[in-house]
Amino acid sequence: MPPYLTPISADALRAIGIPAPWTFGLADRVRFGELDAVGHVNHTAYLRWFESFRLPFLQARHVTDYGPSSPRLVLKQVTCTYDAEMLMGEDYVVTGRVSAFRNTSFTMEFATWRVASDHPAEQTAHGGCVVVLLNRDGPGRHPIPEAGRDAFITHDSAVAEG
Amino acid sequence: MPPYLTPISADALRAIGIPAPWTFGLADRVRFGELDAVGHVNHTAYLRWFESFRLPFLQARHVTDYGPSSPRLVLKQVTCTYDAEMLMGEDYVVTGRVSAFRNTSFTMEFATWRVASDHPAEQTAHGGCVVVLLNRDGPGRHPIPEAGRDAFITHDSAVAEG
Amino acid sequence: MPPYLTPISADALRAIGIPAPWTFGLADRVRFGELDAVGHVNHTAYLRWFESFRLPFLQARHVTDYGPSSPRLVLKQVTCTYDAEMLMGEDYVVTGRVSAFRNTSFTMEFATWRVASDHPAEQTAHGGCVVVLLNRDGPGRHPIPEAGRDAFITHDSAVAEG
Amino acid sequence: MPPYLTPISADALRAIGIPAPWTFGLADRVRFGELDAVGHVNHTAYLRWFESFRLPFLQARHVTDYGPSSPRLVLKQVTCTYDAEMLMGEDYVVTGRVSAFRNTSFTMEFATWRVASDHPAEQTAHGGCVVVLLNRDGPGRHPIPEAGRDAFITHDSAVAEG
Repeated sequence: MPPYLTPISADALRAIGIPAPWTFGLADRVRFGELDAVGHVNHTAYLRWFESFRLPFLQARHVTDYGPSSPRLVLKQVTCTYDAEMLMGEDYVVTGRVSAFRNTSFTMEFATWRVASDHPAEQTAHGGCVVVLLNRDGPGRHPIPEAGRDAFITHDSAVAEG
Repeated sequence: MPPYLTPISADALRAIGIPAPWTFGLADRVRFGELDAVGHVNHTAYLRWFESFRLPFLQARHVTDYGPSSPRLVLKQVTCTYDAEMLMGEDYVVTGRVSAFRNTSFTMEFATWRVASDHPAEQTAHGGCVVVLLNRDGPGRHPIPEAGRDAFITHDSAVAEG
Repeated sequence: MPPYLTPISADALRAIGIPAPWTFGLADRVRFGELDAVGHVNHTAYLRWFESFRLPFLQARHVTDYGPSSPRLVLKQVTCTYDAEMLMGEDYVVTGRVSAFRNTSFTMEFATWRVASDHPAEQTAHGGCVVVLLNRDGPGRHPIPEAGRDAFITHDSAVAEG
Repeated sequence: MPPYLTPISADALRAIGIPAPWTFGLADRVRFGELDAVGHVNHTAYLRWFESFRLPFLQARHVTDYGPSSPRLVLKQVTCTYDAEMLMGEDYVVTGRVSAFRNTSFTMEFATWRVASDHPAEQTAHGGCVVVLLNRDGPGRHPIPEAGRDAFITHDSAVAEG
């Protein structure tokens, strides 16, 4: 089990059974407040996990430093498919990557994995989103920084489109 | 502006500018707790709105009475596209319908509409989900009740598949 | 049952069995997302209800118009006592009032009431909070506007302290 | 900085500047979804943190194993005082203890601490709650297990009342 809330490298992901192409992960644990009246993790919690993943990930990919002159990142679309129920107290890893990008937007993919010391990681959900970069002050879109585009290609094998 | 939290008929939807094929709506108002640090409604709030819509809607469509012998309704997939930002205190209507169904699952479509007395309703998001019916006790899937299939066809013009 | 999300007057509160000193109420309905794995309304949902109540209430009491030169309202303390469980779909009214105030802070009291057409309102929780007014730009506290102090006394019989 | 989501001993708490009487802590990090439109951690998030703390803590104190014959733990009261704002991405530790107990209920105290490698822990909030033990099946209250009472006294120096 890798440390919680700390970026997990590709090698460390493979060691717990999470396959390519994932190269960035974050471990966490299901909280009581994420369960719903059915007794399992509510479907919106997975979207929260993807959101929590995006913030450090997009900084690591040089898309933003969240500073006053950074672009405003806005979600255009989200999707999630639920592969297996998750329960109270379970450990999990969120993995994410940029699969494609254009000049001022990019597409991400995500997965969640149940992890335990005695069996390989099991995928419990997968999803995606489209993020658009806007200018922080004034109208119009903001281009993805060059360092971000490079990181998308180098680390995520993302496809440049459009 | 129609009454809050009370089913809105097709005629009443048309009167505020919400077009066909929507025939069922629920009005509500944005709460402070649904905003995020960006100052607009967080993307997960829309999924919560769809969830809150589904419960009375699926009872009205005779899919479940939420009783002890009713099927267990589980989300297999959700998607949402964000068309326009929403802000604190705004009134909105959620519309939803069943677009297609199989023996033990169905597909829904949703939209959210900003409503105000001085202009026609404006679509701010649209999305969908796939719901699977499971047996409450024991394994296996549960068929959609006959009354539910009839209601899907009659009220939502849903397509029978598979 | 009074209309949802619309201020309820003292007379209308009395008509459904909510006693003095409450003079301001807002009706709403329990949502699925407010339940926890125990199957009842989670304890944090009541604090959210009080928060949602405060925003229109404090505008009605002339404490703030939420404009760019309005004070910043910050919570210093919250408390809630749970008197009876609440369940999915139940209608309820939140009541609130200012019980005491100083120069730059005030104390509120809240209660939640289960309401139904066939029996008088039943108190399900009660609580309170302390709100501090800060200057929006720069350090230091902001005095309660004169119109706010007057409204606290006139409508809530609040006690001026300190 | 101690590991996240893993019980922190009294000695390890002292090492980062968290004083007696706290003997049990859990470290975590502020998530985007815990912020509100003011841009700081919403007041309800702290109550969620106390909730997340209680579950492993009460198991460690032998009050419950969350099994089918365990008591039902219900909150009777919560309170929280906010000492300093918290912001996105900050590391924090929640500490908690049982301060007093009766036959079928007990009182807890909590605090949250901002932690960073370059300065001692800073208290950002403190609060408390009253928990009541109910029988899981049928009416009536459930006594605190003997092992739980012993642990309250031994580890938390809790006071036996009533």
